Amino acid sequence: MEYTIGQIAIAVFAITGVLAASNKVNDIFGLVVLGVVTALGGGTIRDITLNVTIFWIDDFNYVWVAVATSVTAFWIYRFFRSTYRLLLYLDAIGVALFSIQAIDKSLALGHIAPFAVIMGLFTSIGGGIIRDVLSARPNLLMNTEFYATPILAGCVCYTTLNFFFPSFDHSGILSMGIIFGLRSASIFFGLSMPDCLVIKPSSK
Amino acid sequence: MEYTIGQIAIAVFAITGVLAASNKVNDIFGLVVLGVVTALGGGTIRDITLNVTIFWIDDFNYVWVAVATSVTAFWIYRFFRSTYRLLLYLDAIGVALFSIQAIDKSLALGHIAPFAVIMGLFTSIGGGIIRDVLSARPNLLMNTEFYATPILAGCVCYTTLNFFFPSFDHSGILSMGIIFGLRSASIFFGLSMPDCLVIKPSSK
Amino acid sequence: MEYTIGQIAIAVFAITGVLAASNKVNDIFGLVVLGVVTALGGGTIRDITLNVTIFWIDDFNYVWVAVATSVTAFWIYRFFRSTYRLLLYLDAIGVALFSIQAIDKSLALGHIAPFAVIMGLFTSIGGGIIRDVLSARPNLLMNTEFYATPILAGCVCYTTLNFFFPSFDHSGILSMGIIFGLRSASIFFGLSMPDCLVIKPSSK
Repeated sequence: MEYTIGQIAIAVFAITGVLAASNKVNDIFGLVVLGVVTALGGGTIRDITLNVTIFWIDDFNYVWVAVATSVTAFWIYRFFRSTYRLLLYLDAIGVALFSIQAIDKSLALGHIAPFAVIMGLFTSIGGGIIRDVLSARPNLLMNTEFYATPILAGCVCYTTLNFFFPSFDHSGILSMGIIFGLRSASIFFGLSMPDCLVIKPSSK
Repeated sequence: MEYTIGQIAIAVFAITGVLAASNKVNDIFGLVVLGVVTALGGGTIRDITLNVTIFWIDDFNYVWVAVATSVTAFWIYRFFRSTYRLLLYLDAIGVALFSIQAIDKSLALGHIAPFAVIMGLFTSIGGGIIRDVLSARPNLLMNTEFYATPILAGCVCYTTLNFFFPSFDHSGILSMGIIFGLRSASIFFGLSMPDCLVIKPSSK
Repeated sequence: MEYTIGQIAIAVFAITGVLAASNKVNDIFGLVVLGVVTALGGGTIRDITLNVTIFWIDDFNYVWVAVATSVTAFWIYRFFRSTYRLLLYLDAIGVALFSIQAIDKSLALGHIAPFAVIMGLFTSIGGGIIRDVLSARPNLLMNTEFYATPILAGCVCYTTLNFFFPSFDHSGILSMGIIFGLRSASIFFGLSMPDCLVIKPSSK
């Protein structure tokens, strides 16, 4: 079940990656590379940092799914553009799943909770940042969209629950719900960072 | 013989790196760093992904060759600019050699063929992409030049031959010939991606 | 003592990172990430290249210091902006310390001196380059400021002294003095690369 959701999330990441990159990159090779990078980049950073075998080397299905959906997204580009808002919600599910999985992986290797939070965060935002750097687009650090903050909140919640209530079985579901809920609200209402957490241009 | 060609290819990569970066970067330090990154970056990504010792740590001659040719390229910059077309053909030989070498290295470590193809591709294009990111130039993913596709074709050909005809001794030479031939044709005739594999701006 | 100076240097790097990024990035999340990346990025590249455990995984205090000073720098942004010149001198001390530490770490792992020089250089400039790539600012390779050259001079001096006079106890202090002295002179007098080491636009 978790494995299936994971593969679907990889597919969604690849499709959103192709769509996002398509305003700067436009041939099939570039778009497929960027789709795959978006889908697999975050987990690759995680595994290199943890110094373990990269997950898609162990299970190459991740690569096939990422390549196949990227190629598909290139061919039925118009269809996916019209479903972009739906994809954002699917992306929120993927992000929720990947960050919690990354925390589990880090904790299982004996790392401390704050480190696991960092891994959870970078696993879910890393792929998109690499894609934006490679396609010369402004990345998510450069806007005030409410994207990373919900993930951070869910990651902190999950490690805190794990630490204080290790016998509570539903901390994963709860934390993923927090991430998905906050992200969905942010997509639906177009939320961005509150003004007090932004340096105003006038003060520069 | 292969070793000598490898060192020459490193030198060619360093020179093309310096020339390519010189429209954005212009002091000797920056240009030498970018020349070296172009020459050694792809193999470094490969070795970090494979989790083996980085090749230029094992044999530091690669670094000396890259530094020496980058410094030389800085000093006799005008000479190399006038030979730029010749360098493109030498670059095609280097790209052909490096991608096949990377496949051999990956297969020898017990990895599967599709993974080896990815390593072959990224080893030969990785250095140039890092250089372009560091010098804020559009990278090869962002144009429709026929650069990565010939490499991909040669890599797929080589692993396929290896798999079905492991006793055929000339698959390496044949695949390098395919890469070099397609790249040369692409340089000579100015080929780019066919229109059916490019998303037209009007459809955006 | 060295440990304390190291932590102060991490703090200074994080503050200068936040200030440097603040003309492109302006919410607290983005600025804290870029402050932390500036502070820890160079050492992370070093440890991945050396294939050893990343230093801030071994001692998480580095992360706490980087996060805490980045958050502080966000809140008292105006204060730090007015002390920017002082921070540049503190940055020069940090750069001097980190490059010599990186050389010691590389030599202790049995690497050769020229490799150690490369590690010394990239450890001190790597974080700033990653920050600039992530915030789409021109990085230090792209201007002719006298930043990397003093570091390179100090690194070469240190490894040379280590090699020929291994019993000389003060080579570290001397080399850090060279880096700090040249950088300070460069900040104070606004030095940049001499013209003979720059490709003039007219020759392009």
